[in-house]
Amino acid sequence: MSTLPDPALGAAVKAADRAHVFHSWSAQGLIDPLAVAGAEGSYFWDFEGNRYLDFSSQLVNTNIGHQHPRVVAAIQEQAARLCTFAPGFAVEPRSEAARLIAGRTPGDLNRIFFTNGGAEAVENAVRMARLHTGRPKVLSAYRSYHGATAAAIHLTGDPRRWPNDSGAAGVVHFWAPFLYRSPFHAETEEQECERALRHLEDTVVFEGPATVAAIVLETVPGTAGIMVPPDGYLAGVREICDRYGIVFVLDEVMAGFGRTGRWFAADHWGVVPDLMTFAKGVNSGYVPLGGVAISDEIAATFEKRPYPGGLTYSGHPLACASAVATITTMAEEGIVENAARIGADVLGPGLRELAERHPAVGEVRGLGVFWALELVRDRTTREPLVPYNAAGEDNAPMAALAAACRAAGLWPFVNMNRIHVVPPCTVTDSEAKDGLALLDEALTVADRHTA
Amino acid sequence: MSTLPDPALGAAVKAADRAHVFHSWSAQGLIDPLAVAGAEGSYFWDFEGNRYLDFSSQLVNTNIGHQHPRVVAAIQEQAARLCTFAPGFAVEPRSEAARLIAGRTPGDLNRIFFTNGGAEAVENAVRMARLHTGRPKVLSAYRSYHGATAAAIHLTGDPRRWPNDSGAAGVVHFWAPFLYRSPFHAETEEQECERALRHLEDTVVFEGPATVAAIVLETVPGTAGIMVPPDGYLAGVREICDRYGIVFVLDEVMAGFGRTGRWFAADHWGVVPDLMTFAKGVNSGYVPLGGVAISDEIAATFEKRPYPGGLTYSGHPLACASAVATITTMAEEGIVENAARIGADVLGPGLRELAERHPAVGEVRGLGVFWALELVRDRTTREPLVPYNAAGEDNAPMAALAAACRAAGLWPFVNMNRIHVVPPCTVTDSEAKDGLALLDEALTVADRHTA
Repeated sequence: MSTLPDPALGAAVKAADRAHVFHSWSAQGLIDPLAVAGAEGSYFWDFEGNRYLDFSSQLVNTNIGHQHPRVVAAIQEQAARLCTFAPGFAVEPRSEAARLIAGRTPGDLNRIFFTNGGAEAVENAVRMARLHTGRPKVLSAYRSYHGATAAAIHLTGDPRRWPNDSGAAGVVHFWAPFLYRSPFHAETEEQECERALRHLEDTVVFEGPATVAAIVLETVPGTAGIMVPPDGYLAGVREICDRYGIVFVLDEVMAGFGRTGRWFAADHWGVVPDLMTFAKGVNSGYVPLGGVAISDEIAATFEKRPYPGGLTYSGHPLACASAVATITTMAEEGIVENAARIGADVLGPGLRELAERHPAVGEVRGLGVFWALELVRDRTTREPLVPYNAAGEDNAPMAALAAACRAAGLWPFVNMNRIHVVPPCTVTDSEAKDGLALLDEALTVADRHTA
Repeated sequence: MSTLPDPALGAAVKAADRAHVFHSWSAQGLIDPLAVAGAEGSYFWDFEGNRYLDFSSQLVNTNIGHQHPRVVAAIQEQAARLCTFAPGFAVEPRSEAARLIAGRTPGDLNRIFFTNGGAEAVENAVRMARLHTGRPKVLSAYRSYHGATAAAIHLTGDPRRWPNDSGAAGVVHFWAPFLYRSPFHAETEEQECERALRHLEDTVVFEGPATVAAIVLETVPGTAGIMVPPDGYLAGVREICDRYGIVFVLDEVMAGFGRTGRWFAADHWGVVPDLMTFAKGVNSGYVPLGGVAISDEIAATFEKRPYPGGLTYSGHPLACASAVATITTMAEEGIVENAARIGADVLGPGLRELAERHPAVGEVRGLGVFWALELVRDRTTREPLVPYNAAGEDNAPMAALAAACRAAGLWPFVNMNRIHVVPPCTVTDSEAKDGLALLDEALTVADRHTA
């Protein structure tokens, strides 16, 4: 794609956007979307000739970077063969994508139900859990995001749930471990883990175990803040689920497919859920795709009894072909290993070094290419740089920081009082270092608000 | 794509499917998915060399036929340019698709919120209606299908809702007009229309108009039976909505984009809803895409106030590029006009002729390339050929009929006691006639069950 500036085309694209495109999560009259001309690898550029280092991976989905030639070629080839076909048939890329995914998911998650994205994956995981157990309730964590369709948004534990909360029956929120802002007044990871498990089991017991179909957790919560769970936590949740006959659902929509430096985040702890949702990284979003990986036990429930869910584009051939190419390429090019190495050798050390120099950085946490900087006004009190769910003037410090990043040519992922450092898994050492240097500059804007 | 038989590849595709693909709406152990090798225009073929005339358009989505070369080329070109980009930006195919869709939707439906499919479109339409009105309830019809995510499946008025019915607050079902099985004991279309409107208004009044956010209707109900509404019905619903400040949502996921011989089914009656959902035909499903077209009044609600909904792939560039190519091609090649002509000149007369010869055909109804044969055991009593939601032995007559169609090389769309005749909008006269001839043969299987 040409990188030559073309401001006239950019203006036309922008004008049609403002006239006709209704944007996600936005006040339509208060946004000013950047018109984007093209993208490659870790970069994208606008119509004015400005180039941005993409440290957001868009919405943390382009794990393989922008426009990977092997995935592009696979889409082109499959488009020539067969774009779409109904879910009731067997078609080659669908079969092959399911085989490749099932070959990488932990344990006996051997069957794949495909959806168009993460929200529908969560919807179907919840449906399966309820029908498998015959129980109504689902437990999920505060500080979580599971999607925006009705069941998924009710499970979500961030403010996006609030305006959508029609009081869905059967959703109960609990607190997951987060030592830096411990809901349990813990002082060590071990203590946080033990107390979080106790809190979860107490919640199950007081809700009535026989009423709880599923516990749904992001393996490493994503948009909510990349809180890496303490060792032992996920194994403990697995035990609670086993003890009470509850379906354990791990949501790996954001954490899966290389983001944490393993194929799935669950692999870090050797935990096997009963259902695992995925989307984003499965094909880097080149074509909309998501799904649920299903254990043999739950699949058996729907062997003779019809599964009452589905969608026109389940196992979409073009989407599945792009997943086949993505997974194959990630394996052959060592992209997951690259994410692990970049995290261990460049981003982890580099971000911790930034934290030493910048008083606004309260905590650095993450793994692979999945990092958060928790920004504070005061390292002692840990007062967030902006209040929870801040808007307008209250959010000005974070808005200024994001603007400083963008002005420097770094496109950040910003949520509440945090910057997430989430480049593609293909990011090179020098790109990662460039990004750290740009972040170093921009963080001085945040430091001005510290005590 | 090669049409040479390759049974070995077919067996491998099938084996991986059975091992790893979890299918929509199915008992996984009781299905035997056909392995499909390729498709073109109105036909597809398997790995054994069998060719099928696709009178299902898959799930009534390939309005432009299989593998239209202009849409395939557009996907290939956009793949080379930019596969995916986050919804917060302005990108060319997204802007252009929105402009083209808004240019064809009725009235002032000028803003487009893109989703990955129909269910998410309905989810978002309901969210918009509730927030716009501040009211909790949504009314929808029995004999309807609106998708399988939590809000969409609760609105659905067919048996797929039953196993998913967790008693969502605020959904109320009413009866829409269907003269052949009139819920209102009407004897003419005029009477059916008048009584259906009275029933709907009574329901609104007794639910409490100030509690009703939206009335959601398929303009012409699709999977539920292609019941073309009597003249005056939709205008009457529009009046009821206006009288009580209720948002009128027309679901054109299946009926839209040429299926009825107009761009939108609403165009037949000159009715303008406040929100209109679409998917399927917008790009024939070549890439997953759906959306909501939004009136100026409802868009204004979210001008200064954030719209609390969204998804990673809203306005997906590859999906939008395929919509641009589809809409442009349909316009330039007169495909919508072809659908209208085929309905008026070939399918309508041909199906009515079949009805004369086959006692199992109780009613023929439809328009464009959107027709249903209502099959009965007895034309006088109108007893359906199989009971509502029949399975197993109870459904044997319909299963035998479907098998007879497939054995003859015709792939039908079958639902309950009906065969839907829903070929692509690109179907030729001779293909349509071939299909009618094959149907003529197969219907003798149904006739055996008549009184």
